[in-house]
Amino acid sequence: MIFLRKTVAIVGATGIAGQQFIVSLQNHKWFKIKKLAASEKSAGRSYQEAIQNPNSGTMRWWSPERPNKEILNMEVENAGNLDAEEVDIVFSAVESDAALSLEPRYAKTTPVISTASAFRYDEDVPILVPGVNLEHTELIRIQKRNRSWQGFVTPIPNCTVTGLVIALKPIYDAFGLDKVLMTSMQAVSGAGRSPGVLSLDIQDNIIPFIPKEEEKVQKEALKILGKLNIGKVDNANLKVSATCTRVNVSDGHTESVFLSTKKPCSVEEVTEELRNFGKDFVRIGLPSAPREMIVVHEDQDRPQPRIDRDIYNGMATSVGRIRKDNVLENGIKFVLLSHNTKMGAAKGATLIAEYLIKKGYIK
Amino acid sequence: MIFLRKTVAIVGATGIAGQQFIVSLQNHKWFKIKKLAASEKSAGRSYQEAIQNPNSGTMRWWSPERPNKEILNMEVENAGNLDAEEVDIVFSAVESDAALSLEPRYAKTTPVISTASAFRYDEDVPILVPGVNLEHTELIRIQKRNRSWQGFVTPIPNCTVTGLVIALKPIYDAFGLDKVLMTSMQAVSGAGRSPGVLSLDIQDNIIPFIPKEEEKVQKEALKILGKLNIGKVDNANLKVSATCTRVNVSDGHTESVFLSTKKPCSVEEVTEELRNFGKDFVRIGLPSAPREMIVVHEDQDRPQPRIDRDIYNGMATSVGRIRKDNVLENGIKFVLLSHNTKMGAAKGATLIAEYLIKKGYIK
Amino acid sequence: MIFLRKTVAIVGATGIAGQQFIVSLQNHKWFKIKKLAASEKSAGRSYQEAIQNPNSGTMRWWSPERPNKEILNMEVENAGNLDAEEVDIVFSAVESDAALSLEPRYAKTTPVISTASAFRYDEDVPILVPGVNLEHTELIRIQKRNRSWQGFVTPIPNCTVTGLVIALKPIYDAFGLDKVLMTSMQAVSGAGRSPGVLSLDIQDNIIPFIPKEEEKVQKEALKILGKLNIGKVDNANLKVSATCTRVNVSDGHTESVFLSTKKPCSVEEVTEELRNFGKDFVRIGLPSAPREMIVVHEDQDRPQPRIDRDIYNGMATSVGRIRKDNVLENGIKFVLLSHNTKMGAAKGATLIAEYLIKKGYIK
Amino acid sequence: MIFLRKTVAIVGATGIAGQQFIVSLQNHKWFKIKKLAASEKSAGRSYQEAIQNPNSGTMRWWSPERPNKEILNMEVENAGNLDAEEVDIVFSAVESDAALSLEPRYAKTTPVISTASAFRYDEDVPILVPGVNLEHTELIRIQKRNRSWQGFVTPIPNCTVTGLVIALKPIYDAFGLDKVLMTSMQAVSGAGRSPGVLSLDIQDNIIPFIPKEEEKVQKEALKILGKLNIGKVDNANLKVSATCTRVNVSDGHTESVFLSTKKPCSVEEVTEELRNFGKDFVRIGLPSAPREMIVVHEDQDRPQPRIDRDIYNGMATSVGRIRKDNVLENGIKFVLLSHNTKMGAAKGATLIAEYLIKKGYIK
Repeated sequence: MIFLRKTVAIVGATGIAGQQFIVSLQNHKWFKIKKLAASEKSAGRSYQEAIQNPNSGTMRWWSPERPNKEILNMEVENAGNLDAEEVDIVFSAVESDAALSLEPRYAKTTPVISTASAFRYDEDVPILVPGVNLEHTELIRIQKRNRSWQGFVTPIPNCTVTGLVIALKPIYDAFGLDKVLMTSMQAVSGAGRSPGVLSLDIQDNIIPFIPKEEEKVQKEALKILGKLNIGKVDNANLKVSATCTRVNVSDGHTESVFLSTKKPCSVEEVTEELRNFGKDFVRIGLPSAPREMIVVHEDQDRPQPRIDRDIYNGMATSVGRIRKDNVLENGIKFVLLSHNTKMGAAKGATLIAEYLIKKGYIK
Repeated sequence: MIFLRKTVAIVGATGIAGQQFIVSLQNHKWFKIKKLAASEKSAGRSYQEAIQNPNSGTMRWWSPERPNKEILNMEVENAGNLDAEEVDIVFSAVESDAALSLEPRYAKTTPVISTASAFRYDEDVPILVPGVNLEHTELIRIQKRNRSWQGFVTPIPNCTVTGLVIALKPIYDAFGLDKVLMTSMQAVSGAGRSPGVLSLDIQDNIIPFIPKEEEKVQKEALKILGKLNIGKVDNANLKVSATCTRVNVSDGHTESVFLSTKKPCSVEEVTEELRNFGKDFVRIGLPSAPREMIVVHEDQDRPQPRIDRDIYNGMATSVGRIRKDNVLENGIKFVLLSHNTKMGAAKGATLIAEYLIKKGYIK
Repeated sequence: MIFLRKTVAIVGATGIAGQQFIVSLQNHKWFKIKKLAASEKSAGRSYQEAIQNPNSGTMRWWSPERPNKEILNMEVENAGNLDAEEVDIVFSAVESDAALSLEPRYAKTTPVISTASAFRYDEDVPILVPGVNLEHTELIRIQKRNRSWQGFVTPIPNCTVTGLVIALKPIYDAFGLDKVLMTSMQAVSGAGRSPGVLSLDIQDNIIPFIPKEEEKVQKEALKILGKLNIGKVDNANLKVSATCTRVNVSDGHTESVFLSTKKPCSVEEVTEELRNFGKDFVRIGLPSAPREMIVVHEDQDRPQPRIDRDIYNGMATSVGRIRKDNVLENGIKFVLLSHNTKMGAAKGATLIAEYLIKKGYIK
Repeated sequence: MIFLRKTVAIVGATGIAGQQFIVSLQNHKWFKIKKLAASEKSAGRSYQEAIQNPNSGTMRWWSPERPNKEILNMEVENAGNLDAEEVDIVFSAVESDAALSLEPRYAKTTPVISTASAFRYDEDVPILVPGVNLEHTELIRIQKRNRSWQGFVTPIPNCTVTGLVIALKPIYDAFGLDKVLMTSMQAVSGAGRSPGVLSLDIQDNIIPFIPKEEEKVQKEALKILGKLNIGKVDNANLKVSATCTRVNVSDGHTESVFLSTKKPCSVEEVTEELRNFGKDFVRIGLPSAPREMIVVHEDQDRPQPRIDRDIYNGMATSVGRIRKDNVLENGIKFVLLSHNTKMGAAKGATLIAEYLIKKGYIK
C-alpha cells in the first residue's frame, strides 16, 4: 500500500507537548509537517527564535533529539488565524482553555488529534487508546454529523490513564473488574515547562498531589473501558480510585495497582492475558506501534522507569510484580510503567493518527 | 524526678543504624554511652578508625551531626564478647542473623532494645510503637519468665510499619478497620550502607521492590494493632496488603493508604481522631517524644518528605490528603510520612527506652 | 545597648529572594516587618493569596520555615507606590530592571539594602560583604551627597562572589593575589522560581552556563577586594577568570579555586590566615554573624554542600582541600562552599543591615 | 578485508567494567566472547547466577542493554586459572591489585587490553588513546622483547584523562601547551558498584574529592601527550593541575578547563583545530570509532552530560564554551564532556583492540 504523506499542522508547537509532536513527526514517513502554530507572542517568528530563551540565548528545547533545520526555519503562525483547511491533520498540543475555542474551528474542515482535555468528556467524542478501544472511533461519524463538521476532534487521554487502561483492558475482558485502587508516581515531564516542576521543589522529595489528575484518571478510565452502545459509550461498570503523586523521575509514570476482578483468576492467568494483549492491533503494522503492547517483567524489581521506559521506543506498557492481593476479593496487584511523553503523549497521538488513516477516517 | 543516667552499649555501632543510635544518645540526658561494639573486623580499633574509609581516609558517617570526640576515641569491642552486665541497656543495631545469636546472650542480664527483626515474631516478644501499643510491654514479664532472663528483648518494628500503625491506630480504635492497601515510596536511607542504594541505580528511577519488606509490613502491623489476651497478643482482625517501592529520597518514607473501616466515618471524623491521637502518651513528657504524635496537614500538597520529615525532630507522623475513597466500603484514603531513620529507627528505639525506664521496666 | 526595633519594608516580597527576607527577618529582634511590596499583580492581596498557586491552591513557598500568621495576613502593596519614608529600612529583592527605577525613589528618604545588581557598578555605591570590605561604607556618605539622598543604596554582591571574596580576602591581605581561576558548581536555588531550574533540565545533568554570572564574578570581586582611595574604590590589582556551572544541588554554591599569590606561601600559612579571618568582625557580636567567618575543613572530602552549607546557620564560608598547585607560580588550590540563599542573599543582607545600624549609618 | 572473529576472554566480568565489556562485545562483528572470568567466589557458577543479588534474587546489572542468553548461561571461570592461550585477546577489567598478578600471566601468551592502572606507569607500556597517541603502540614491541612475552599489556587511561587528552591534543600540536588547570565534575558510574556512590551520600550534594584521581590525571596526561623517543615516551613538557569532584550525574564526566598555550591563538583557531582533530583516525573506519572525535558545541549552555554524552554512541568528546581566558598568558578556557563508561572504559578499550587488530599487533 502506498500513502501520499499527509500534511499536518502542529498547534501549540513551542510548548513541551508540541515539541514532542515535532520529534515524533519530523522524520515520519506518513506525515509532513507543513505548519507550526502557537500563541500570538510567537507568531511571525521563526521556530528557532520562538523557542529561544531571551535571557541566555539558549534553546528551550526538551529532547535529546533536536528539531531539524527545516523546522527551525519555519515561521510560526498565530494559532488563532491558522487555516486548518490547508493541512490534512491538525495535531493540537495547546492548553485546555485554548483547545476549547481553537479545536472546533479547525475541526470544521480538518481532523484534530489533541492532547488537551477540553473535549474528552463530550458524549460524541472518543478518547482513543491504541489497542484498547478503537471501536470507539465509531463516535467520530456521530460527532461529525452532530456538529456538522467535516473534520472531528479526538483527544488522547491524560497520560496517567494510558498505561492504566492498557493494563486493565485484558483483565477486564477476561475476568471483569470490580475495584481498582491506584497510586501513581509520576514523572516531572508530565508537568511540562510552564511552570513545570522545579528541581528546588522535587529534589529529595515527593509531592503527593497533582491538581485535577485523580479526577481525570477516575473519569477517563471508565469511559475508555466503556462499551459502545448505539452511538454513545456506556461507562465501564467498575470503580476506580487514585492517589497521584509526583516523584523526581524525568520520564515514565509508575503506577502501583490493586484490583479486584469479578471472576476469580490466578496470577498465571492474569499474566497470560497481559502477555497476549494487543496482538491484533500490533499485527496491523502501524509504524509507531510497539512490537508488544504490554511487556510483562519477571524480575521482581522491574519495571523501573529509567531502564524500561524506552522499550519499543517508549510505546510499550511494562507490567511487573503481578501477584495475589490478600485483601480484596479476587485481588491482584502489580506495578506498571508507561512512558508519559511517548505513548502517553505525542507519539501515542501519532499512533492514533496512523490508525485513523489506515481505517479511512483521515483521508 | 531525678534519674541517674543509664549506661548503654550500642551494638552494631559502625553501621548506619548504630550511627543513628550514637547521634540519638550522645547528648541525651538520660543515657551515657559506655560501650560500642561491632563485628570482629572493627574490634580493638578506635571508633574513628573503625568508620574510616580505608581507600580515601575519609569518614563513613551518615549524619550532619557528628560523633563527639569521646565517641571517636572509644575503643570498639567485639560484639561477640561484650559483657552486657556492665551496662543498663543494650541498643542493638545489628543484622537479623547476628541478632539471633547475640541478643539472647545480652538479654540474660540486660534489657535489649533492638532494630533487628530476629525476635519480632516470637509470641512473648512485643513490637513496641510509642503511643500505639505500649500495653504490650506486659509481654516483657512473660518473656523474662519464659526464658529465665533478667533482661529482655524488645524490637522496634520495620521502619515502614511505624508510621503506618501510628496513622491506623486511632482509626482502628474509633471505627474499626477491615482492609488496608498501602503503597510505600521509601527513602534510600532505609537500605543503609552495605550495600545501600547506589545513585547509579536510583537516580531518575524507582525500584518497585524491597526484599521481604511487604511481608514484614503485613505481619507486623497486625501484631502491633493486636490486643493483649492473657499473656499473648491476638493479631488485629484486619487485612493489610502492601506494595513497597524505593524512590530517590534521602530520608522519610511516604505511604499512600487506601482503607476500609468497619463503621462508616466522615473525613472530618477521621481527621479529628488523627489530630487527637497520642495526647496521653505525649503528656508523659518523655524527652524524645514529639509534641504531637500525628501532624495533620491541610495543604493539599503535603506531607512532603523534604519539608515535613523533620517536624518535631523527626518524631511526628505527618498525614495529609485525607479524603473519601469511592471504591472501598467506608473507604478513606490519605498519604502519610514518617521519618525512617528517626522515629522509625534509633530515635524511636530511644523513645521506647525512655518509656521503659519511666515505667520501671528498665532500672 | 538597647535598640528600638527598626521598621522595614520588603520589596519583591513574593519572589524567592523576598521570601528569604521574610524568613530572615520575621523573628529578628532588631527588625519589624512593617510593609510587604511586590508587583502590581500581587498588590492589594494578602501575602497568603499573593503566593498561592492559582491552579493547585497550594503555597508557592520556598523554605521549610514558614511565614508567620501576621505576615500571611499582611496586605501586599504595589512596589511602585510604596512610601519608603514610613519605614527605617527597605530590603529590596526585586529584579535588576525594577531596582533601577524603584530603589532611587526609596533611597531619597530611606536606606535601601538590595540583592539586585542595578547599582553595584556605580562609583559611589559600595558592594558590602561582611568582614571583607566594610570600610567601603565610607562611600555611603559620598553617595548621599552626590545624589542628594537622605537614604542610600547598598547592594550585596552576586551570591557566587560572596564566598569567593571571603576566602580570597585573607590570602590577598597576607600574600597578595595575582591570578584567580574559579569553576563554580552552583545550586538551583540561585536561579529562583521564575523560571528557576526545572528538574527536567538538571536531573542527571550539569548546565555549564549561567547567563551573565561569570562577568559579575570577575567584576565584583575586583571592586570588593579594592581599596578605598579618596572617595572611590580602586579595583584590586588581580585577575579573575570564572567558569560558572549549574548542578543539581538545592542550596550551596561550591567553587573550585586555583590561585597564584604574589608572595610565596605554604599551605599551612594559607590555612592559618583563613582560620583567623574575620575575628574582629565576629567580635562585634551582630545577631546574624557566624561564630567563625571561615570554617576550614581537614577531611579531604569536605566541604560538601548538603552537609556543610548550614554551619553557623548558613553564614560561614567553608574551605577545604587546601593544597599546593604545581602549575601556577606560588600556586594554591582549594574548594569552597557558601550558602547562596543565606550568607549569599537575604541573611547576608540582614547582617549588613545590622552592621550599618551598629555603626550609625541607619538610624 | 575479511576478519575471522577474534575470540576473547573478559576477566573481571561480573563487575561494572566487565559488564560494560559484555555490552560492548556481545554483538560485535569482530569479536566472539569465549570466556568469562572473575574472582573465586563467582567461579563455577553461570554468569546469571554470578551477578544475582543473593538477597533479592534480582540481577546486579548495570546497563539498559542486557547480556544475551548465551552470556547468561556461560560458566564463569576463576581468573587465577584462566588459560589465556585459548583466546586471541584478554580484556581485563579487574582491580589494580589483581591486575598486577593476573595480567602478566595472561600476557605471556596473549594480548591484554586493560582498564586497570597497574601497568600504566611502566616505561615499556603505552597508555593508548584512540586518535591521540597511537604511535605509542611502538612500545608494544619493546615490551614483548623486554619481558619475553608473546602477548603484551596495554592499559587504557583513567576515564577522566581520556576526554581531557583528546581535547588537549590538537591544541598541543598546533599551539603548544604550557599550563592546564582542570576541575572535573565526575559521574557516579565512575566509582563502579563496590562500594560505588550511595544516593545517600551524593543526593543534593557534591563530593569534592576522589581518591588518587588527581594524581592519575596529572601523571597520565603527560605520558599520553608525550613523544616517542628511541623506545620510550618522553613526558610532554606541560604542567597539569586537577581538582576532581563527584556530582550526582549517572554517566559522563564534565571538565572545566583553563589552559595557557605556548603560541598565541584565537578562539576561532582553537575551535578549528578541535573540529578537525582525528579525521585520519576516523577515516580508518574502525567499527567503534565515532564519526567525529570531537564535537564542538556552539550553544553556550552545552555540552550537558544527559543530552550530549551519547553522541556517536558515547565515543565522541564534546567541547563547548570555548573562549579567551583573561588570566593566563595565551589563556583559553572551555568545558568538555566525555562518556566515562563508553569512550572512557570498555568501548574505548574495544576501539583500541580494533586498531591493534587492524595494524597487525593482534593476530
